[in-house]
Amino acid sequence: MKTAIITVGKEVLTGKTINTNLMHIASSLQSIGIDVNRSFVIDDIKEEYNKILEFVDEDIIFFTGGLGPTIDDITRESTFDYFKMETFLDQDIVDSIKHYFERMNMKMKDTNLKQAIRPLYSTVLINNEGTAPGLYFEVNNKHIVLLPGPPSELKPMLPTVLEILTKKLDIKLYSEGFKLVGTGESYMEDKLKGFYERHPNVNIAPYAGLGEIKYIFTSSNKHDLENCKKAFYSKFSDFIYGNLNDSLEGVVVRLLNDLNYKISFAESCSGGLLSGKLLNVSGSSSVYDEGFVTYSNESKIKHLNVSQKVLDTFGAVSNECAYQMVEGLHKNTSCDIGISITGIAGPTGGTEEKPVGLVYFGMYHNNKVTTHKFVFNGDRDKVRNRSVIYALNLLRGELLDVKNNNKSTTT
Amino acid sequence: MKTAIITVGKEVLTGKTINTNLMHIASSLQSIGIDVNRSFVIDDIKEEYNKILEFVDEDIIFFTGGLGPTIDDITRESTFDYFKMETFLDQDIVDSIKHYFERMNMKMKDTNLKQAIRPLYSTVLINNEGTAPGLYFEVNNKHIVLLPGPPSELKPMLPTVLEILTKKLDIKLYSEGFKLVGTGESYMEDKLKGFYERHPNVNIAPYAGLGEIKYIFTSSNKHDLENCKKAFYSKFSDFIYGNLNDSLEGVVVRLLNDLNYKISFAESCSGGLLSGKLLNVSGSSSVYDEGFVTYSNESKIKHLNVSQKVLDTFGAVSNECAYQMVEGLHKNTSCDIGISITGIAGPTGGTEEKPVGLVYFGMYHNNKVTTHKFVFNGDRDKVRNRSVIYALNLLRGELLDVKNNNKSTTT
Repeated sequence: MKTAIITVGKEVLTGKTINTNLMHIASSLQSIGIDVNRSFVIDDIKEEYNKILEFVDEDIIFFTGGLGPTIDDITRESTFDYFKMETFLDQDIVDSIKHYFERMNMKMKDTNLKQAIRPLYSTVLINNEGTAPGLYFEVNNKHIVLLPGPPSELKPMLPTVLEILTKKLDIKLYSEGFKLVGTGESYMEDKLKGFYERHPNVNIAPYAGLGEIKYIFTSSNKHDLENCKKAFYSKFSDFIYGNLNDSLEGVVVRLLNDLNYKISFAESCSGGLLSGKLLNVSGSSSVYDEGFVTYSNESKIKHLNVSQKVLDTFGAVSNECAYQMVEGLHKNTSCDIGISITGIAGPTGGTEEKPVGLVYFGMYHNNKVTTHKFVFNGDRDKVRNRSVIYALNLLRGELLDVKNNNKSTTT
Repeated sequence: MKTAIITVGKEVLTGKTINTNLMHIASSLQSIGIDVNRSFVIDDIKEEYNKILEFVDEDIIFFTGGLGPTIDDITRESTFDYFKMETFLDQDIVDSIKHYFERMNMKMKDTNLKQAIRPLYSTVLINNEGTAPGLYFEVNNKHIVLLPGPPSELKPMLPTVLEILTKKLDIKLYSEGFKLVGTGESYMEDKLKGFYERHPNVNIAPYAGLGEIKYIFTSSNKHDLENCKKAFYSKFSDFIYGNLNDSLEGVVVRLLNDLNYKISFAESCSGGLLSGKLLNVSGSSSVYDEGFVTYSNESKIKHLNVSQKVLDTFGAVSNECAYQMVEGLHKNTSCDIGISITGIAGPTGGTEEKPVGLVYFGMYHNNKVTTHKFVFNGDRDKVRNRSVIYALNLLRGELLDVKNNNKSTTT
């Protein structure tokens, strides 16, 4: 089954908007084993619809965009006309659009009526985030899916689309995955040599992010999938921090909660980003009270009791400074676990001995301080954000150790 | 002149990568008045190249991707074959690829040789970031541009591509713009009614971001462009914080530097993001020493001298708390200007009286504290990031006032 995704809209063609819909749809389809063959972006002009529909020979055709109420929104009309579909005004859709407006204390306009027109034999994809419903219909042995352009409206419809296609195409596929941190794509691919061959019935797809990778496994055989996942897990358990719904900061907050720990950070080069990241987890207030951004030497002395001698002898970017920073952090906050970060984010300030990207981490836990050193690649922004991921992963490792030891001593 | 952009690569079709190249190329072309008519994503299969080249009727055709050294990289061969181009091995390119590898202490592989093949009459777009040079050539009255896939290699080539096209197509166009904050797209469009008509020779394009908008003006007439810019500026000067190369945090750091000010932040709901953002400006160490993330009530009392009475009577998310937070911040840091942020980022914790999105800001400056209140839309992440933009804009306004008053009193 070959799929084409057609995005409609001037905003993408003028470079005002990045086409993220292609990614959302394509990666969803991958999870049920459907490949996207080609993708197109066209302007909202009737002639362009006809040209592209004449051209595509794929079996599944997605349109995104052009389902709004304005006269520029012609995806419905254009596809219905092209395929000569018999249509009707669906009163249920009219009511749900009315209801949508009522929730915002507004009245539906007449222009919205056209959003309720659909082919006789079609399936409505309900839109709770906007007025434009999505549609699915079959015609000329093709599966047509019309989706709204705004990602916030499109994304909630994808599970239903997958359900429909799975049923229509009689797909029996299972999909699961892991998220990993502390490893790189090339290291992984090297370690996975031979692994792919040992699991021929499972599609294994890596998706690399900043400092993170996720692996998605898809198979029509649940047993094969489980075996593959198990083998992958035992090979890479050190790097695996969760499943596809987890976030690294979410996992850390969960572990802190489990252990009834309070955490605190003393940040220099990361300048608040680590706190900012952790506190994006809803409910993180139970594990975090306070933190310091100590950018200047003076503030490291004042808030964290770093000694002038260490700063003079080793500098602010040093093992010794990271050590004293986190020691002082614990003293002044009585946190159960603490992290300090000090480094050279660049672009200036680097030397041969201490290059841009060099970052020291201190961790306080159980009356002990450990320090860690890493040299990160990339520009100022990347160095700072990679430092944050590194720190979260340090924490994850330490907290997991405690949790597992607790378990082993109580059982 | 109509343009088609063809992206080649499995990564985009599987949803592993977002196609940012389309945005980079399209917005660059817009700046010289060239519209992108359609865009395509195809797989790296020879047949797909032929099909799409047969289909496109645009005058300018961009390819991105498929210029690497592997056997999967066939954009060169496929386009050369399709257009029946006479080609040769360019020894200068070979040398530059060799040089690229030498810089990394590696040796060029034979597979890289094909990257040095180009049509007799073509222009090489030099690649300092990788091995694949870009190419420009004319054939059958079409302008063909081949660019590498990685954005870090593609982007540096775009100025040269614009130069070539400007010359070849005899384009005389000027492009400038402004960045705005503290206003929304619908407000702007309302205020701009009639403005577009008064400047018919200038293309005016808004690009909305999170809490920010930029407007780009393009015209073939420099005088018209200047007039339009002047009129726009006098209408919206309150919102305009800089030109297209500026960032809001960069402007704030520049103003702080100009005034020789030190700044400090006391963050609750933003949790370090404001510090993190400001400190992403290289050289911000001259204006920032220290800051606090005070998430719990206790930490607000301890580090910022917020009174238990205020917390009991008004709560942590209140005008009064924001006031005391920034007052205490100044006392404990001796900053020249300071900001406090306390609010309800959600998704939980909102009440009828204090809904999710409610944020209070305190600003200390010149022995005076002012407070500000705003209710932001969006999820937890958006509320927090919009709070940061709001705070930076508060600072910008205050600092500009000082700077302008200083000027008026000294002249």
